[in-house]
Amino acid sequence: MHVMIIGAVGMLGKKLASVIAKTRQCNGQSVTRLTLVDIAVAETPENPAFPIESLAFDLSHTDTAPLLTKRRPDIIFHLAAIVSGEAENDFEKGYAINLDGTRHLFEAIRRERDRNGNAADYRPRVVFTSSIAVFGGPYPDTISDTFFRTPQTSYGTQKAIGELLLEDYTRRGFMDGVGLRLPTICIRPGLPNKAASGFFSSILREPLVGQPATLPVEDTVRHWHASPRAAVRFLLHAGTMDSSRLGHRRTLNMPGLSATVAEQVEALRTVAGNDAIALIRREPNPDIAAIIAAWPQDFTADRATDLGFRAERSFEDIIAVHIEDELGATSA
Amino acid sequence: MHVMIIGAVGMLGKKLASVIAKTRQCNGQSVTRLTLVDIAVAETPENPAFPIESLAFDLSHTDTAPLLTKRRPDIIFHLAAIVSGEAENDFEKGYAINLDGTRHLFEAIRRERDRNGNAADYRPRVVFTSSIAVFGGPYPDTISDTFFRTPQTSYGTQKAIGELLLEDYTRRGFMDGVGLRLPTICIRPGLPNKAASGFFSSILREPLVGQPATLPVEDTVRHWHASPRAAVRFLLHAGTMDSSRLGHRRTLNMPGLSATVAEQVEALRTVAGNDAIALIRREPNPDIAAIIAAWPQDFTADRATDLGFRAERSFEDIIAVHIEDELGATSA
Repeated sequence: MHVMIIGAVGMLGKKLASVIAKTRQCNGQSVTRLTLVDIAVAETPENPAFPIESLAFDLSHTDTAPLLTKRRPDIIFHLAAIVSGEAENDFEKGYAINLDGTRHLFEAIRRERDRNGNAADYRPRVVFTSSIAVFGGPYPDTISDTFFRTPQTSYGTQKAIGELLLEDYTRRGFMDGVGLRLPTICIRPGLPNKAASGFFSSILREPLVGQPATLPVEDTVRHWHASPRAAVRFLLHAGTMDSSRLGHRRTLNMPGLSATVAEQVEALRTVAGNDAIALIRREPNPDIAAIIAAWPQDFTADRATDLGFRAERSFEDIIAVHIEDELGATSA
Repeated sequence: MHVMIIGAVGMLGKKLASVIAKTRQCNGQSVTRLTLVDIAVAETPENPAFPIESLAFDLSHTDTAPLLTKRRPDIIFHLAAIVSGEAENDFEKGYAINLDGTRHLFEAIRRERDRNGNAADYRPRVVFTSSIAVFGGPYPDTISDTFFRTPQTSYGTQKAIGELLLEDYTRRGFMDGVGLRLPTICIRPGLPNKAASGFFSSILREPLVGQPATLPVEDTVRHWHASPRAAVRFLLHAGTMDSSRLGHRRTLNMPGLSATVAEQVEALRTVAGNDAIALIRREPNPDIAAIIAAWPQDFTADRATDLGFRAERSFEDIIAVHIEDELGATSA
């Protein structure tokens, strides 16, 4: 099976590529070829056990996508996106990558299907990462699987449009699409960044290595989380699951853990003790608090759970994943 | 005030243009210029009381929309669309007009705003006709204003994407958009056509002029209707209403009348007697019945009603509108 990852330089793309290269599998199915695509060339493992190709392409150019689909990957993971803050700051770039790039890919798949006059012979699984940014308030306390798409950012709009296109191209038989609305990924590895959501990770990540971190909101703030490992597991599962069980509604709210900041902090105390907690500095920031107040807090994710998607059940687990996967150790 | 109607050759576009030309008003506000746009040249009234221009443009061409927006209309009614059946039969044409055409228009508005380096001076009201085709089953018995967008046709997908773009371009301050999800228009004037929904109109329209009509479904079938006159009233109201009351959720389910075919037939009996009813031939058609079974039956439309949109309350009223507006008479 030939797997293609578009957006292979991003945090999730890298982790997904690494798992597939190491296990030679996607959720139990044998992988014999891997193609990595991003705006920059993705690093490939040395001495891979099967062919791994790394391609630098800008999906917003109309001539790029056909060069990808002519390779006829069986599974395409489409993770490439301009993130929320940048899509809000650069209107044209966000639409060029997040909307046009996605549409170019789907169009190239549709045309590849017909390129050799053999309409039935190409219909790849396409796993599209969407986001809970397709939702906007006011929300119910818990968001069900039938809550309506009401984005309040350009990024959320572009993701919602991607979902609609995925569903229509799938319904028309051009591809076999599965959309995943990922929770906020916590703990994000790497350096602190200026994303409004950054503190959810940094208040855990930094103290775990003895560094200070800033908490800009009240600890009653509640949000929806899953670990990077859970997100990769979602992708692998979506790559090979029986998609006929999805019907026409091809996009799923992924399971996650709804937790308050206080619950995050208590989990850190359990895992790393009071010294770690002491490294969290409370510096209320009304701008960040206002942004976070507009975000969803909790989901049911019943459909995804019924379909076998699994997230962490406690923040202790989420912290343990970070320690195992990023800090090269096994937690207590 | 300068009003532009895009899709001016269609049934609603023609009626809207005619009302504005006659009254020189849009919902009480004075109109001093009217521009009619469609793929073909729209007829203009003789001796109009103010300048009326008619332009033939194909909105799917990227260079067309700026030629419209440089005229800086204060209100743009965007009614142009490839209809449901054609968008399903011709995938590329549907996307070219319904998605690309709409996006070209919105982009041209955004760029017109900046064209003279005067960012604040152009922000037109844009009234976009969407459709209850943005919804797909399974449905609740009555669809509320927060039911989610789940189209099951390419047309419905394209309309849902148009709504999302309208909402994002409005939120970003590029325009002042209002989206209207119209009920099925009944009684559509003109000749019988092959649309699956055609019988809802023809079982009333044909018998009213002594012609036979075919009923392909059970008379327990329930659907959601408004007259052409109500639809034009919705458009005029949306053209000048206080849009600040909409918040971020810029698209409204329009009010209508939920009625069974049996209720339609009884209304016809009340207005036109048993001789008219006798002209309805029952010829069950399982294909049409299956299509109609997937359509919504009833809505609350509370938001639109609170905002002053009004539809008919009985099928006798809907029939009376047809007799007055199309048959040149006043019903009893």
